[in-house]
Amino acid sequence: MENKFAELRKRYEETAALGSARAVLAWDQRVTMPPGGAPGRARSMSALARVVHGKATDPEVGRLIGETWDWAQAKGPDSFEAAYLRVLKRDYDRATRLPSDFVAEMSAAASAAMAAWEAAKKNSDFPSFAPHLEKMVGFNRRQAEFLAPGEPAYDTLLDLYEPGMRRAELEPLLGELAEGMKPVIKAISESSAAVSDDTLKGDFDEKAQLALADELVRELGFDFTKGRQDRSVHPFTTGFSLSDIRITTWTMRDWLPACVYASLHECGHALYAMGAPAGFEFTPLAGGAGLGVHESQSRFWENFVGRSRPFCEWLLPRLRRHFPGKFDKTGPEELYRAVNKSGPSFIRVEADEVTYDMHIALRFRLETALLDGSLKVKDLPEAWNAGMKELFGIVPKNDAEGVLQDVHWSQGTIGYFPTYSLGNLMAAQLNEAMRADMPDMDGLIARGEFAPLLGWLREKIHVHGARYFPADLLRRATGKERDAAPFVRYIKEKYSGIYGF
Amino acid sequence: MENKFAELRKRYEETAALGSARAVLAWDQRVTMPPGGAPGRARSMSALARVVHGKATDPEVGRLIGETWDWAQAKGPDSFEAAYLRVLKRDYDRATRLPSDFVAEMSAAASAAMAAWEAAKKNSDFPSFAPHLEKMVGFNRRQAEFLAPGEPAYDTLLDLYEPGMRRAELEPLLGELAEGMKPVIKAISESSAAVSDDTLKGDFDEKAQLALADELVRELGFDFTKGRQDRSVHPFTTGFSLSDIRITTWTMRDWLPACVYASLHECGHALYAMGAPAGFEFTPLAGGAGLGVHESQSRFWENFVGRSRPFCEWLLPRLRRHFPGKFDKTGPEELYRAVNKSGPSFIRVEADEVTYDMHIALRFRLETALLDGSLKVKDLPEAWNAGMKELFGIVPKNDAEGVLQDVHWSQGTIGYFPTYSLGNLMAAQLNEAMRADMPDMDGLIARGEFAPLLGWLREKIHVHGARYFPADLLRRATGKERDAAPFVRYIKEKYSGIYGF
Repeated sequence: MENKFAELRKRYEETAALGSARAVLAWDQRVTMPPGGAPGRARSMSALARVVHGKATDPEVGRLIGETWDWAQAKGPDSFEAAYLRVLKRDYDRATRLPSDFVAEMSAAASAAMAAWEAAKKNSDFPSFAPHLEKMVGFNRRQAEFLAPGEPAYDTLLDLYEPGMRRAELEPLLGELAEGMKPVIKAISESSAAVSDDTLKGDFDEKAQLALADELVRELGFDFTKGRQDRSVHPFTTGFSLSDIRITTWTMRDWLPACVYASLHECGHALYAMGAPAGFEFTPLAGGAGLGVHESQSRFWENFVGRSRPFCEWLLPRLRRHFPGKFDKTGPEELYRAVNKSGPSFIRVEADEVTYDMHIALRFRLETALLDGSLKVKDLPEAWNAGMKELFGIVPKNDAEGVLQDVHWSQGTIGYFPTYSLGNLMAAQLNEAMRADMPDMDGLIARGEFAPLLGWLREKIHVHGARYFPADLLRRATGKERDAAPFVRYIKEKYSGIYGF
Repeated sequence: MENKFAELRKRYEETAALGSARAVLAWDQRVTMPPGGAPGRARSMSALARVVHGKATDPEVGRLIGETWDWAQAKGPDSFEAAYLRVLKRDYDRATRLPSDFVAEMSAAASAAMAAWEAAKKNSDFPSFAPHLEKMVGFNRRQAEFLAPGEPAYDTLLDLYEPGMRRAELEPLLGELAEGMKPVIKAISESSAAVSDDTLKGDFDEKAQLALADELVRELGFDFTKGRQDRSVHPFTTGFSLSDIRITTWTMRDWLPACVYASLHECGHALYAMGAPAGFEFTPLAGGAGLGVHESQSRFWENFVGRSRPFCEWLLPRLRRHFPGKFDKTGPEELYRAVNKSGPSFIRVEADEVTYDMHIALRFRLETALLDGSLKVKDLPEAWNAGMKELFGIVPKNDAEGVLQDVHWSQGTIGYFPTYSLGNLMAAQLNEAMRADMPDMDGLIARGEFAPLLGWLREKIHVHGARYFPADLLRRATGKERDAAPFVRYIKEKYSGIYGF
């Protein structure tokens, strides 16, 4: 049986190595490729995708999974072998249940939808995008039906991004989160506290921003011998092996936090990826437990560390060094308040910690309604604007800054948005547990001693890769079930301090 | 039959698109990959190589070649279809004649030999490298025997790099070249002319060097929407499609020509690659006619243009702009003499136009003797030093700056070096023909009007891709057979002017 498992591993390694090649091509496309390269690159990418798909759905893989299953389970449900087969079987079943014609059709429709979305967003022209969105909703329904016939579609889609999560568990969590934020949002709107982010506006040399970003992620523990940081249109993290993890950031000349916090965020993803044990290299266990857990890592470093008071104390002299003269009159408390300024806003990716999850709540509400047909695509802009009015008290002036702002639905991903909130919520739980274990966490951060924090995450989260379901992983790390209360507590305490309520 | 040819093309496109993916991985490895990425990258590269090899040697490809051959020939030997099949058949036959075990063995041995070579070069320790070289010579003999049983091995190997070339034709050409250079070398060594390259030495900011390099290749016609220029340990050119061609250069802080002429050289390769007709994309005809022709393009821009007097006139104000103050006292004639300073030297890649081909003559002499067994590997250093003494009158102080300087033999490539001289020789022939067509070529260069030169090469060379054998391509472009006389004439005229003999 060892031989059969070894054979399965060999096959998987080959497939993973080719998948990794495809990721290199995608990184290059977003970071370094000249514009002329696009058509040729599309051909290389799709040729490679066909090869990877062929290997991933090879019936021999299915046969070997079946033959080794009981042998692996006998080693215990948490054994490397059992976990390996569980994740591999999940991916294999998914890949083989979707007919390849359907995959090709959906992928082509998504390409067309993304192009239509880009144009529609530019012209704030929802009707031109509506038929594409209609199609993508249909594709999502069919995809769910192929994957789990008869099951609730949203559960099936959600499980693609957050293994084991179901709508019945998700909905109360998101509800509790939103309910918890409402009084905070109200208190902030009524507060007369002076919170200004003027110090973060101005003219910040972009090379200096990038140099600062490199320094920050290095201090956090990003290993530049095993990764790099570049610039791209939208920040992202990717990896080709456990020792080649790449992040990107962006810069806005007149708004410093864009670069700083994108870097901290992507660095959080990268530290998770870099922290898998060497034995997980080119195995199904290398990719992390799910998108929510991934997001908990990025949000932990971005917000729970990066927007904390001690971090601002540590950051300030660095800002002064990279931008001479710019922060001479800014104190640490002013910086802390500036990076935490909160208020209703139209754009999710620019939202602060308090309001961010309200944006997710809106998307969750709308995408579930689209999927079950209770909301028609043509009525979506109206529903969006009504939701913005209800949740934030503001209405976008056009669909570009409203319903058309995000790429996700055009890509055909429904069930993805909630993982952002799950990330916030789990980050808060990890933060509470870590502070209980390390009472001087603020002191460590203020002194730039991030290694103990990373060490804690390594031990509790990173080394497990995809071995456990997200809920099990969290329970092992914190002793708790997923729970919105720690996040609500954290926000209330932090923001009552800043806004004095 | 059209359908079968279309099926063949579809298969080839898929294979080429995967080969192109592999080239992206190789580029990334040399230009952007963090050091930690190496082991994972090796796995992705070899997984991809296996896939490409499998597709390239698929018996179905052989069957389709056979079935469409006569149909294509009937369209005329120069037709797209006939040329397509000719090149594809050559590659297919080569790939299928080499047993895959042999290919794997030779590739593993080459990896080991390269590692041994690197260490040996660092320590100037030939004996540690000798057993590896011995093996690589053996692999070359076996490779030739697999490819063309009973044929002279050197002819078979040479044909891998310069299609259609045979030793019996090559040897007199290289001999004529060397004989032609001897009196020039002697005259230069006896000349009392003041030729100094001091103006090119000093402290040149490396970012300014790279900015200059970008400007130079852009002026020559390199299209940055279809390519990029980066920095790497050794300069090289690669391409992933006709619209994504990438070059690299290097910089030496204290020696400006390293960057400038590496850029011009690689740009010449890139312009050739960018100049193939769109219809050749992802066909066997896209890659150029052979390494000699490729080198003729790089050397044409590097030397026949880049080291000409009018180019130096055009270059000087640009040097002054990129390196303020550095070239205030340098005149165009001084610059021209500086970039053409000639003398015996140990290192091929640093050799001037006069002595370069003597380095090749030495390597050709030694590699043919190694292959036929008349020279033993253990006696190679002695033979090298004797050759250096004979050809240049100097003897390297150690094997690092002698027999160990080049990577080629360790990679297992025997029969490659002569393509450098063939490139020089063909560049001279193209230069003569172009000057006959464009009497004001010097004026064009002095004014930076490079488009007519590029246009001439496009029409005569680039648009033909691999449609013709190198000899046929040259005959079509110049009406001449391969001939060393134009190169000898060019060198004599140029250097008698500089050194006054």
